[in-house]
Amino acid sequence: MKPFHLFVLAALVAFGCNGPLVGNPQPAVESIDFAIAIHGGAGTIDRDMDPDLERAYREALEDALRFGYGLLEQDSTSLDVVEQVVRRLEDDELFNAGKGAVFTHEGTNELDAAIMDGATRGCGAVTGVTTVKNPISLARTVMEASPHVFFTGSGAEAFAERMGLERVDPEYFFTQRRWDSLQKILKREEGTVSETGKHGTVGCVALDRSGHLAAATSTGGLTNKRFGRVGDVPVIGAGTYADDATAAISCTGHGEQFIRNTVASRVSAMMEYKGLTLDEAARVVISKVLGPGDGGLIAVGRDGAIALEFNTEGMYRGAADSSGRFEVAIWE
Amino acid sequence: MKPFHLFVLAALVAFGCNGPLVGNPQPAVESIDFAIAIHGGAGTIDRDMDPDLERAYREALEDALRFGYGLLEQDSTSLDVVEQVVRRLEDDELFNAGKGAVFTHEGTNELDAAIMDGATRGCGAVTGVTTVKNPISLARTVMEASPHVFFTGSGAEAFAERMGLERVDPEYFFTQRRWDSLQKILKREEGTVSETGKHGTVGCVALDRSGHLAAATSTGGLTNKRFGRVGDVPVIGAGTYADDATAAISCTGHGEQFIRNTVASRVSAMMEYKGLTLDEAARVVISKVLGPGDGGLIAVGRDGAIALEFNTEGMYRGAADSSGRFEVAIWE
Repeated sequence: MKPFHLFVLAALVAFGCNGPLVGNPQPAVESIDFAIAIHGGAGTIDRDMDPDLERAYREALEDALRFGYGLLEQDSTSLDVVEQVVRRLEDDELFNAGKGAVFTHEGTNELDAAIMDGATRGCGAVTGVTTVKNPISLARTVMEASPHVFFTGSGAEAFAERMGLERVDPEYFFTQRRWDSLQKILKREEGTVSETGKHGTVGCVALDRSGHLAAATSTGGLTNKRFGRVGDVPVIGAGTYADDATAAISCTGHGEQFIRNTVASRVSAMMEYKGLTLDEAARVVISKVLGPGDGGLIAVGRDGAIALEFNTEGMYRGAADSSGRFEVAIWE
Repeated sequence: MKPFHLFVLAALVAFGCNGPLVGNPQPAVESIDFAIAIHGGAGTIDRDMDPDLERAYREALEDALRFGYGLLEQDSTSLDVVEQVVRRLEDDELFNAGKGAVFTHEGTNELDAAIMDGATRGCGAVTGVTTVKNPISLARTVMEASPHVFFTGSGAEAFAERMGLERVDPEYFFTQRRWDSLQKILKREEGTVSETGKHGTVGCVALDRSGHLAAATSTGGLTNKRFGRVGDVPVIGAGTYADDATAAISCTGHGEQFIRNTVASRVSAMMEYKGLTLDEAARVVISKVLGPGDGGLIAVGRDGAIALEFNTEGMYRGAADSSGRFEVAIWE
């Protein structure tokens, strides 16, 4: 090999290992000014679902997606958008977050939420909240009004009180449907923590016109959960992650699997350190790192690319961007 | 360029991006059968420390290190070793974990711990524990005796009760030195959560003769902490991570910085996806991803390499391996 060839070789090896040459070439996503994706949980979603219920889910997803899209169109920051969209999903009792949260073993509702700002990697998370109407807004307040990231239980409640967040009587979180689910499980088998394969969570990720990414996730956890069990939602890097250099990710599924595999930050790390595209990283994590039935994720990349990946029968989800894409789906 | 050259080029580019060619060549660590590292916190450690206190710290580190080394030599699993060594550090009131835990704003002691098994990526974590003598053992029990990963507050206590862990009166965690620290802060300035730059935590990472890695971390958190504040310790991927494919990592420092930068799992990701050595990955994360004064980490790689990195004035630490290395240090 001539010296010049060696030089080219060395340069390509060196450059290829850190630069954009790595990964399979993908068609470039062009002229996406802003983008948004949402989810309302993944799992074994019955294809014979009552048509009225299916319509209600689709309408709720469309409504939340259109709302977020509208905010982005009007130049809202991605951080505002993910918070506002998740608030809307928390207020809708169809989803297992906020108003529609499932019940713990003790018949209470304990809520978790996390938010992350891709511009600063600032983040906020709360767990075990029982009287805050919108846990996602409490998570944002932790991020912005405290030097900390993660507040738990009665401490998080005390912080909510001090910061003037909207509180509700715990009774507010009662819904007949979720109560019946708990009773069914309690009757069927002691120790079962959830209906098999049903993972409820809501989440939103967004890219705004300024190129900033944000992610937000909120949940009521598992029906019949005990011992102050916490899943992946408030664990930054597991269920929620955002970095302007890579992507914003929000997950839903078997929380423990998402924690031990650091799913959300792994997608980002595969992009940053292995040079994968968002689509490639999301697919590898969902299909190779996780096991079948574990759950799914939504993500938006710095270029506006959107990933909606899951290895369950379905995932309530929606995606829209400034190029005109607007879609809502439940099954494949 | 001839076709053969192109072939070599393509092969090297392809291989170089995923394989061992990436990163600066390092002298290979050879014939390390087992290895262990420990830490007892990082921060602004006064170089004019009372000589008796300094001697006590060195002796405690040496004792814990020798104990762990002995267990590894007798074929204990890395998981047993990290748990047992951290128990010993928790029982020593010199360190901010277990017996020596600092006080919250309310004058209570709330303990956090996490453990992770590199062979399975199984993990367990607890936060806000007040009556469990050794939180690290509770974390391991969560990992092994529940389908979950993360238990909080009174729920974690109830689980400890059910599983028969050793309980103590909260009074057990009273130490005059930590109480005085709280009083000093309360007097000085309301709202200050810790003595500047002092980050107390204990941790242990180990590689056993079977090639399995494990990590364990335990802490009392920040003096004067409020609102159920949780740092990086029980956040898997932030303060604690282990994967037999890469390394076992335990961190100590400004917890919020370790959470938002997913420090422990980032070290692993840089090794797995960028091909860095443990030493390179640890250095990049501590010196480039984190800021000066944020803290430090200990790590052991699958080949027995040990990293002890920090960007603070000091870190209580120790390292030993089967090749005869045995060292304890506080400052650089």
